[in-house]
Amino acid sequence: MTDLSPTVTTGPLPASRRVWHRGTLHPDIRVPMREIDLHPTAGEPPVTVYDSSGPYTDPEAEIAIDRGLPRLRADWIAARGDTVTYEGRHVQPEDNGFADGARLTPEFPVRHRPLRATGGRAVTQMAYARAGIVTPEMEFVAIRENLGRQAAKEAPARDGEAFGAEIPDVITPEFVRDEVARGRAIIPANINHPEAEPMAIGRNFLVKINANIGNSAVTSSMAEEVDKMVWATRWGADTVMDLSTGRNIHNIRDWILRNSPVPIGTVPLYQALERVSGVAEDLSWEVFRDTLIEQAEQGVDYFTIHAGVRLHMIPMTVDRVTGIVSRGGSIMAKWCLHHHRESFLYEHFDEICDIARAYDVSFSLGDGLRPGSIADANDAAQFAELETLGELTEIAWAKDCQVMIEGPGHVPMHKIKANMDKQLEVCGEAPFYTLGPLTTDIAPGYDHITSGIGAAMIGWFGTAMLCYVTPKEHLGLPDRNDVKTGVITYKIAAHAADLAKGHPAARTRDDALSRARFEFRWEDQFNLALDPETALSMHDETLPKEAHKVAHFCSMCGPKFCSMRISHDIRAEAQKEGMAKMAEKFREGGALYLPQENAI
Amino acid sequence: MTDLSPTVTTGPLPASRRVWHRGTLHPDIRVPMREIDLHPTAGEPPVTVYDSSGPYTDPEAEIAIDRGLPRLRADWIAARGDTVTYEGRHVQPEDNGFADGARLTPEFPVRHRPLRATGGRAVTQMAYARAGIVTPEMEFVAIRENLGRQAAKEAPARDGEAFGAEIPDVITPEFVRDEVARGRAIIPANINHPEAEPMAIGRNFLVKINANIGNSAVTSSMAEEVDKMVWATRWGADTVMDLSTGRNIHNIRDWILRNSPVPIGTVPLYQALERVSGVAEDLSWEVFRDTLIEQAEQGVDYFTIHAGVRLHMIPMTVDRVTGIVSRGGSIMAKWCLHHHRESFLYEHFDEICDIARAYDVSFSLGDGLRPGSIADANDAAQFAELETLGELTEIAWAKDCQVMIEGPGHVPMHKIKANMDKQLEVCGEAPFYTLGPLTTDIAPGYDHITSGIGAAMIGWFGTAMLCYVTPKEHLGLPDRNDVKTGVITYKIAAHAADLAKGHPAARTRDDALSRARFEFRWEDQFNLALDPETALSMHDETLPKEAHKVAHFCSMCGPKFCSMRISHDIRAEAQKEGMAKMAEKFREGGALYLPQENAI
Repeated sequence: MTDLSPTVTTGPLPASRRVWHRGTLHPDIRVPMREIDLHPTAGEPPVTVYDSSGPYTDPEAEIAIDRGLPRLRADWIAARGDTVTYEGRHVQPEDNGFADGARLTPEFPVRHRPLRATGGRAVTQMAYARAGIVTPEMEFVAIRENLGRQAAKEAPARDGEAFGAEIPDVITPEFVRDEVARGRAIIPANINHPEAEPMAIGRNFLVKINANIGNSAVTSSMAEEVDKMVWATRWGADTVMDLSTGRNIHNIRDWILRNSPVPIGTVPLYQALERVSGVAEDLSWEVFRDTLIEQAEQGVDYFTIHAGVRLHMIPMTVDRVTGIVSRGGSIMAKWCLHHHRESFLYEHFDEICDIARAYDVSFSLGDGLRPGSIADANDAAQFAELETLGELTEIAWAKDCQVMIEGPGHVPMHKIKANMDKQLEVCGEAPFYTLGPLTTDIAPGYDHITSGIGAAMIGWFGTAMLCYVTPKEHLGLPDRNDVKTGVITYKIAAHAADLAKGHPAARTRDDALSRARFEFRWEDQFNLALDPETALSMHDETLPKEAHKVAHFCSMCGPKFCSMRISHDIRAEAQKEGMAKMAEKFREGGALYLPQENAI
Repeated sequence: MTDLSPTVTTGPLPASRRVWHRGTLHPDIRVPMREIDLHPTAGEPPVTVYDSSGPYTDPEAEIAIDRGLPRLRADWIAARGDTVTYEGRHVQPEDNGFADGARLTPEFPVRHRPLRATGGRAVTQMAYARAGIVTPEMEFVAIRENLGRQAAKEAPARDGEAFGAEIPDVITPEFVRDEVARGRAIIPANINHPEAEPMAIGRNFLVKINANIGNSAVTSSMAEEVDKMVWATRWGADTVMDLSTGRNIHNIRDWILRNSPVPIGTVPLYQALERVSGVAEDLSWEVFRDTLIEQAEQGVDYFTIHAGVRLHMIPMTVDRVTGIVSRGGSIMAKWCLHHHRESFLYEHFDEICDIARAYDVSFSLGDGLRPGSIADANDAAQFAELETLGELTEIAWAKDCQVMIEGPGHVPMHKIKANMDKQLEVCGEAPFYTLGPLTTDIAPGYDHITSGIGAAMIGWFGTAMLCYVTPKEHLGLPDRNDVKTGVITYKIAAHAADLAKGHPAARTRDDALSRARFEFRWEDQFNLALDPETALSMHDETLPKEAHKVAHFCSMCGPKFCSMRISHDIRAEAQKEGMAKMAEKFREGGALYLPQENAI
């Protein structure tokens, strides 16, 4: 370990325990969840919530960043007998942008030889699903999505508008298999990232969120990025994208992967560009292909591939207010234009699929022409690319590759649903993965909020994963605080979407928190919150004493004006007077309880 | 002045000037707007935005908190010849909760004798509108809503879904008169608050926001509340509600009113309860009536009246998860239940209207039974009350009183539109004024965001004014920072709604900011932002040098990966190569620019 070694935040969230549910088809799998204990006066069982935080919140787990996380899935992968270990590529100077000496981030101390498929097989979850195999990953996902509700015999009351999504009352492993086989969900799970806990991205599952991290040429380091990754998953990031574009890109990614309990996505084009010293015109299929293999061997779970940006679309962007705002999209557009050639990503997409299927790298088909302003939303360039992404989806599916589709961007509210509808129509129900969208351009510094609005809406309409936007969007590289704010904002958006879709488990936590609120169980209210620390500290700003944690009021209204306290008085009074009798009187039409039209 | 005297924030926002547009029908009126200057390289005129900040942002204005703002409307009111000055009520010890000595907030140093209508007349904007009179207030509002766009000869391109709202291309004074006459908009403008700059609340105008301030028995003081009021309007609050519930309630309100450039709303029941020492059962019509008159004489522009909470509705709330969460609603429910009598507010609503019309106090008919949790949304109690608010609207309109209707609360996304639709149906298109709604219960500490999502949506659907929610909601009394965060969040929601409705002036600012962004005019981007200070400081965290303000990249991506920079290269290259020629080739079907189906 060097002085640069990352320190990360560990330990449980307040009143929380990491618990495990065992598999049935695969009895060796242990699916983690978080149980939040309530105060004994609640008389309620713990509330079970989804847990993306990995071993870091488990006090029993021994965390050693320089050794990496336990390789959870190694045996499952080996048991399938369709992969082989090989020497793999050794790190080259260009992989780290020729950083050297003190500027070189050390290699991760442990080297695992990579696995790949044998005999040209597809070792993807989709291939297994289509073959009728329920993998441990699929059962893991099924248990995880149920949040413990398989125990409930009766179907929960459902209330929502799902716009065609069909979320069953209980998720079975077979349901997961079917959704993956149909391409309606993906389980991003590179065979070289066995540390990750399987999760699903699909319209018929809980809405997921992604957090972007990564350095740039201007700022940030390996230790910061590893810390941000752990920090993001602590607060609920379901996947993390490493969007590093500076030097040390290979080594930083290794540290992240070996310590990440969630799938890691990348945009390989960024590293390919580093290899050609930042000159887009010098990119080639060969450089790109080598980058894909390098990253697949490391264990990247999904690749953003901007293969939908085609030469003939570029003129469509020239009159835009903000041109091309996707980094990958602009790089490819520049390449196409310079060479007056069709995109090598588009032309070689078949071969890209051959790489992906050998490692089970999922695709996130990039929206290189997404709108970067309200003015450019839903324009011809954007939708032309989306149609191409639909074509590419078919190609990938023919190779048993898992696919999701990236979406915008900047879109005013009235144009959001058209994005979802068009995506469903042209991409065969492959999961949609959107960045926001931002619903106005006028609030830099608050784009987590401008985009949280759009994210909640498009999540409701059917987007499977929401890529967070932090307060720093458009202004600078997010730091740790920005990452947390982005994650919490997007957990809100995703959860609001789950509620509106009528997800059978979504309201449990709201109801538990609302009961706690009504019963003045302040600690329970904080502990059930997405961010217990912030809730507690805001309360304590004005009422810091322990006694105030049981007070039947807060500083917002003070004791005399507390509606909740008065509501309790009303309830008590009603019981005294016999509310049932009152209600009966009302129903009988007693004058006292009927609208007195003459009284006014 | 005492040591307790408020200090408030003054001075213009960056690159901004307060400018005035003169009236035509009423040439003496001067309507303030804010012009944001752009960098000369933009080659664009200044961007005109709505300005709620009053004289505080005008460097020419002399601010003296202990004298109050200029009495802008005094002559307009006097010219109508339908009011008389009278001695009015002098401050009584109970008006300030019997505070004395050092605990007594001093009276405002200047006492203005109140005005009221003569001869039982209605001196409301609605009465004038119905009589066909276009008041100075109406012309003021018309000019203000146009944001300078009356100069534009041609109708702007419209793009939106307005759900039945009918926003004209240009707002005329006659249009304002008609909307007010029909009850579809209100201009809250008590004749005793001539300091306020007229503004309209209605579905066919820009969406407005309200900021709540006010002390509680636990915390806060007069100086803090005056500061919060000025601070809230600086960032865009269109009205402010003083929800004080502690002592000194009368005197604090006077300081606020005399210094407020925006309409002030209150919940008179809070003060009435103070008068009876917090014992809800001891409330009476007489106490309440006196409170109304006291506040009308001071100049309160709108009253929240919880007259819709009726005795027979109370049993409907008993099985709720969170009972009654409106302070006013719970107080009235307790009173009704204790006395087993119909609400005195409901029974005396006619007399309440008689008071309101003599001063032009608008009504905000309170939703005392709004849901306080996702579980309770859209239930029988909530909608029964809403129907009653519709009845009361008719009564108020018959007395020429201006009315808006309060709405929830906590509502999951799929149940939001039903609220708007029902309100339009049962309340005769009176403006809707909603608190959020919060779209999930699980994020205390972030309820500006949970509710900002709902606010943007319901604003789009037709809500005329959005009551902000701060991060402290459910946890404590908001401080200055919370007020700003709440206001900015709600400006985002309101603006996103304006965009989605297709308001003809809304996109101007987005487009100007997006052009600035695309052209790396960093300073313009900050200056056009809702919060220039935060945007600037976030940028400067990583790139603080002045040279970085003209850099063609930021720390987010660094220079090599800046899509905007690359887009410029593309544009330049396209021009060099002749984009028109390329596009032509494409249209002609040249193989290079057509989808190459065989290439894959």
